[in-house]
Amino acid sequence: MRVGIIGATGYGGAELLRLLKHHPHISEVVLYTSSKEGMNINESYPHLMSIYEQELKAINLDSINDEVDAVFFATPPGFSAEWSEAIAGTGCQVIDLSGDLRIKDPKTYELWYQREAASSALINKAVYGLTEWNREAIRSANIVANPGCYPTATLLGLAPLLTNKLVDVDSIIIDAKSGTSGAGRSPSAITHYSEMNENFKAYQINKHKHIPEIEQQLHKWDNDLSFVTFQPHLVPMVRGIMSTMYMKAKKETSEQELRELYQTVYGNERFVRVRRQGEFPATKEVYGSNYCDIGLTYDERTGRITVVSVIDNVVKGASGQAIQNFNVMNGFTEEAGLTLVPMYP
Amino acid sequence: MRVGIIGATGYGGAELLRLLKHHPHISEVVLYTSSKEGMNINESYPHLMSIYEQELKAINLDSINDEVDAVFFATPPGFSAEWSEAIAGTGCQVIDLSGDLRIKDPKTYELWYQREAASSALINKAVYGLTEWNREAIRSANIVANPGCYPTATLLGLAPLLTNKLVDVDSIIIDAKSGTSGAGRSPSAITHYSEMNENFKAYQINKHKHIPEIEQQLHKWDNDLSFVTFQPHLVPMVRGIMSTMYMKAKKETSEQELRELYQTVYGNERFVRVRRQGEFPATKEVYGSNYCDIGLTYDERTGRITVVSVIDNVVKGASGQAIQNFNVMNGFTEEAGLTLVPMYP
Amino acid sequence: MRVGIIGATGYGGAELLRLLKHHPHISEVVLYTSSKEGMNINESYPHLMSIYEQELKAINLDSINDEVDAVFFATPPGFSAEWSEAIAGTGCQVIDLSGDLRIKDPKTYELWYQREAASSALINKAVYGLTEWNREAIRSANIVANPGCYPTATLLGLAPLLTNKLVDVDSIIIDAKSGTSGAGRSPSAITHYSEMNENFKAYQINKHKHIPEIEQQLHKWDNDLSFVTFQPHLVPMVRGIMSTMYMKAKKETSEQELRELYQTVYGNERFVRVRRQGEFPATKEVYGSNYCDIGLTYDERTGRITVVSVIDNVVKGASGQAIQNFNVMNGFTEEAGLTLVPMYP
Amino acid sequence: MRVGIIGATGYGGAELLRLLKHHPHISEVVLYTSSKEGMNINESYPHLMSIYEQELKAINLDSINDEVDAVFFATPPGFSAEWSEAIAGTGCQVIDLSGDLRIKDPKTYELWYQREAASSALINKAVYGLTEWNREAIRSANIVANPGCYPTATLLGLAPLLTNKLVDVDSIIIDAKSGTSGAGRSPSAITHYSEMNENFKAYQINKHKHIPEIEQQLHKWDNDLSFVTFQPHLVPMVRGIMSTMYMKAKKETSEQELRELYQTVYGNERFVRVRRQGEFPATKEVYGSNYCDIGLTYDERTGRITVVSVIDNVVKGASGQAIQNFNVMNGFTEEAGLTLVPMYP
Repeated sequence: MRVGIIGATGYGGAELLRLLKHHPHISEVVLYTSSKEGMNINESYPHLMSIYEQELKAINLDSINDEVDAVFFATPPGFSAEWSEAIAGTGCQVIDLSGDLRIKDPKTYELWYQREAASSALINKAVYGLTEWNREAIRSANIVANPGCYPTATLLGLAPLLTNKLVDVDSIIIDAKSGTSGAGRSPSAITHYSEMNENFKAYQINKHKHIPEIEQQLHKWDNDLSFVTFQPHLVPMVRGIMSTMYMKAKKETSEQELRELYQTVYGNERFVRVRRQGEFPATKEVYGSNYCDIGLTYDERTGRITVVSVIDNVVKGASGQAIQNFNVMNGFTEEAGLTLVPMYP
Repeated sequence: MRVGIIGATGYGGAELLRLLKHHPHISEVVLYTSSKEGMNINESYPHLMSIYEQELKAINLDSINDEVDAVFFATPPGFSAEWSEAIAGTGCQVIDLSGDLRIKDPKTYELWYQREAASSALINKAVYGLTEWNREAIRSANIVANPGCYPTATLLGLAPLLTNKLVDVDSIIIDAKSGTSGAGRSPSAITHYSEMNENFKAYQINKHKHIPEIEQQLHKWDNDLSFVTFQPHLVPMVRGIMSTMYMKAKKETSEQELRELYQTVYGNERFVRVRRQGEFPATKEVYGSNYCDIGLTYDERTGRITVVSVIDNVVKGASGQAIQNFNVMNGFTEEAGLTLVPMYP
Repeated sequence: MRVGIIGATGYGGAELLRLLKHHPHISEVVLYTSSKEGMNINESYPHLMSIYEQELKAINLDSINDEVDAVFFATPPGFSAEWSEAIAGTGCQVIDLSGDLRIKDPKTYELWYQREAASSALINKAVYGLTEWNREAIRSANIVANPGCYPTATLLGLAPLLTNKLVDVDSIIIDAKSGTSGAGRSPSAITHYSEMNENFKAYQINKHKHIPEIEQQLHKWDNDLSFVTFQPHLVPMVRGIMSTMYMKAKKETSEQELRELYQTVYGNERFVRVRRQGEFPATKEVYGSNYCDIGLTYDERTGRITVVSVIDNVVKGASGQAIQNFNVMNGFTEEAGLTLVPMYP
Repeated sequence: MRVGIIGATGYGGAELLRLLKHHPHISEVVLYTSSKEGMNINESYPHLMSIYEQELKAINLDSINDEVDAVFFATPPGFSAEWSEAIAGTGCQVIDLSGDLRIKDPKTYELWYQREAASSALINKAVYGLTEWNREAIRSANIVANPGCYPTATLLGLAPLLTNKLVDVDSIIIDAKSGTSGAGRSPSAITHYSEMNENFKAYQINKHKHIPEIEQQLHKWDNDLSFVTFQPHLVPMVRGIMSTMYMKAKKETSEQELRELYQTVYGNERFVRVRRQGEFPATKEVYGSNYCDIGLTYDERTGRITVVSVIDNVVKGASGQAIQNFNVMNGFTEEAGLTLVPMYP
């Protein structure tokens, strides 16, 4: 198959290029741009020299479906809302890594994103791409809204508990930490090296765009839930997300009982690893890979469950999961292109 | 005055040396050791060359009070439990930076520290040195148990709420993050550079020794409180602690109301800075200084208060607060030796 | 005395504010700006909250000398060339931290800086502020051109050898490494956290503006010297410069002989520390301080001398040396405001 | 083929495991140990959970050749000197990542390594595995001495110049910088996070073990050369080496001329990338990959050539090149198992 990437000069695009190189069913990757036509991708990314030597080209709706079979949108806010329907209309599959199509309720979208929502028709076509929990719908989707990085780590960590209604839904606190790559490639004061190194920051207090995305899915699993507290932080590192999650168990439980539940739920999953008793994952243990590693425990003293979930935000939190969804959409083995072992140290 | 340091080759000791150089009332610093007698301090710390050129000397109970007026213990677990009473008995003031004397209940100590508690007599003499909240007792103390780094950031952040009984005591979650210097100077697998850089780790899940210290003080402030959930993490940086704290307000409130409370409580404090509306502190903003910076807000959606409290763990979380307590014990201005401006960037 | 800072929102300005707080002869610091009039300095730098609460004000040539006695320029290229003569003309002392006034030959300046040189009259008035080697001239100067960060580390490291004409002047290689703070506070692709962390970069190959500055001074010391090879690199850290320098000895020598030379030359210097035999300085050992630490050796096998010189680029390489020069100009003890102990770890 | 790894719990071993997972001709990897028999590899490396679930087993000379066809030694000094001959004697190919077999002259080895050299018979059998420059010998070798990390970056960068005798051999200065992973997995004071972060260090001044290895090969290429100055430094990052190299050109040349030479020499090499005019590689641009990227220029002012050569020390500087050599020994395509794209950012 041939695939296209829109937005290849961002980090999501670069990571798609890295991963697709190992994909057994991809014969060609075409790079589309709305503004940098004619630029060789390795002028922007010297690390791709001799690996990808091609130029960015303009999007042409008349010919795009002759050129590629699927298109990944690794684009800034608003781009996918504007273009994905048209491109899907040509017959191409669309996997959208941006946040444009994730929120089903336009008012909620507009409240949190402070911009106009995509058309309802488009939003309704878009299938939420949390692969492990939405495979059936993804299989027949033409447009997939790839989950955000924080929601991926968070939802995979909470799913076994919420789908089984084991926790007090009013008690959930999600304290999340991310490397800086999630902020993208545009220089800014907050990610300026001298300001970010040897520093740790909370940001977007009670206002992060991923809150409604997390709540939307959790509510589907346990409709008693109406909100969570989710708080992101920036860590002086490039890659990696950890969600540390705290909640009251509805009734007394034990580490062993919970572990068995998680092992049952995720035992056959290629990319979710439930860690052993007493072991909690560090972000580096999934570095560069598509794994989501989960550790958990129950504290008898407080009656609280703690779940620690880690991913590489650029892989499982973005480009890796996008390829995983692409694989599901096309009936490929889910691990195609995603067999990379975590890089350690 | 002349002061002594036991354990000058650790990070707490080195920081005392840095800060005491600027103390207007210290004429001499004597370095004591139980194992490295005769070693010049700058063999261990080349950065002190030409600043401190002196040798470590053995502790001699017969002469120590002729040599110094106060002794800082920057020592490993157990040392202070064994020596501080004898040294205080010679007439020296004792400020203990270790955890030996902080927990009032020996059973609680033994449960969490997994070692024998100090004698009850000694523990009862030791005054808990959370300066801003215990000045009167510190003023007349001979032995001060200097608070732990996490408890300092956490307790200063929670105090206005807990002393006014404004929060649901069963709802408190403290998610804490620390640089690696808190782990001390002994090399270990967990703080090996190649394992720690580009990595973020949770540790001591539900088991950290600072939990009973935090609970003991919070319970004093609001005796309805019997436990909290406190979870520490390691950040790939050297200095800095952030405690992000979540709790339900007992009744609806507002950011403004809370801010006014904090400004009232801390308005005259030299080392606590309540940040402006919408502003949350990053750890680097107190780097190398004795400040504790606090940001806070209230989320109407969830009914939760979020408090973000940051310190430099080596200063306000250890050696700086120790000097602050020493100042209180001796009637000096509290800022003596502690006027350093945060180093930024 | 009262002093002014132009450019307080940059890193050089912020460091002046940090250091001047401890200066025993400064009663007031006035902050000047050409573009941010009315802004409170701690809106730009929250770490200065409660320490500096003042607003930036416009420069007024009619009144500036009534307001302050000396002015530090911590300004972008060109600003000092335009303003320093006028401000000096009002009677204020000028210490210029920018590169505008360092190069004596306008053609050389224009070749390397690619911009018009300051007026010859101004350049001739400006005294090069390498304190340890130019005290007499600085003492009576009204305008001091504060050295660049790399030249400071490099020149202090080479001076004893060059002034004594001990090395083959055609053989000098200076391989320099700097933290990112030297690149200033403006975000850029090269210092974007995700691009800079876990990365090491060479830059400005054979083209760095500090080359002519280094050569100009070395040529003064040994006029057989006409050029050097100087190559800077960016290290994933915020503060610190190391210059590793290699050169052929004119005749066989020994580590001991060289060390004795350096100790003789620098034995009475407050801020230059010649390290012990076999000991080479790391950048962190001068972190936050005004020290320049030097280690050196001679290799019999190759006939080469290696000199390793480290400074904190923001202190001895900029604001610290500027204050040191200010002290010399005013007959204060040279260490006034500069007694800070390196922060370690 | 089946291969064995001795020393799988070190970083070289872990990286072999990461890379071999993608090798098309490897059916099984057996993990040998001399001290940790029975331990599951992912107790030591949790990131390998579900990928490698096997136990370490003891080496048995009687059966090893029934178990594997080739053995990688990722072992501490001395181990290979003792074991590689016996294991090669069973019929297994040996690729030794340690420094035991690289130095041909035992006296030189003993001088620099301060330990007894391997037997001359063994050393003479061992072929130096700088793949790009020694393919013919490697093809028929049974024992390959895999080059050190610094020598790999350095020699690949210098080879075109030295083999063509274009430089003044007395003028070569190699200033090298490495991430901390090169120091291995054992915790030490020098690589303790709090001591290494925000720090830059020179080490082993004129004494590094890689000096004789570099000189031995350079001398082969230009036997006028008898020594170089090589100086390593530690960078606060995990992976990556840069060698910045300075030397006098024998006669005037130009960037273009040099670039053409390098392109001619390396134009067909899969893993050496000569960068475009004016472009110099940063270490992150080869992160996690087997590339060696080279930038270079000529300075008319000084008559010096500057070559900047970067590798990932754990890949091209160790395990990647080991697999490249294994491929050559077995007639596989050289890129087998090594097609990974650099990870960026």
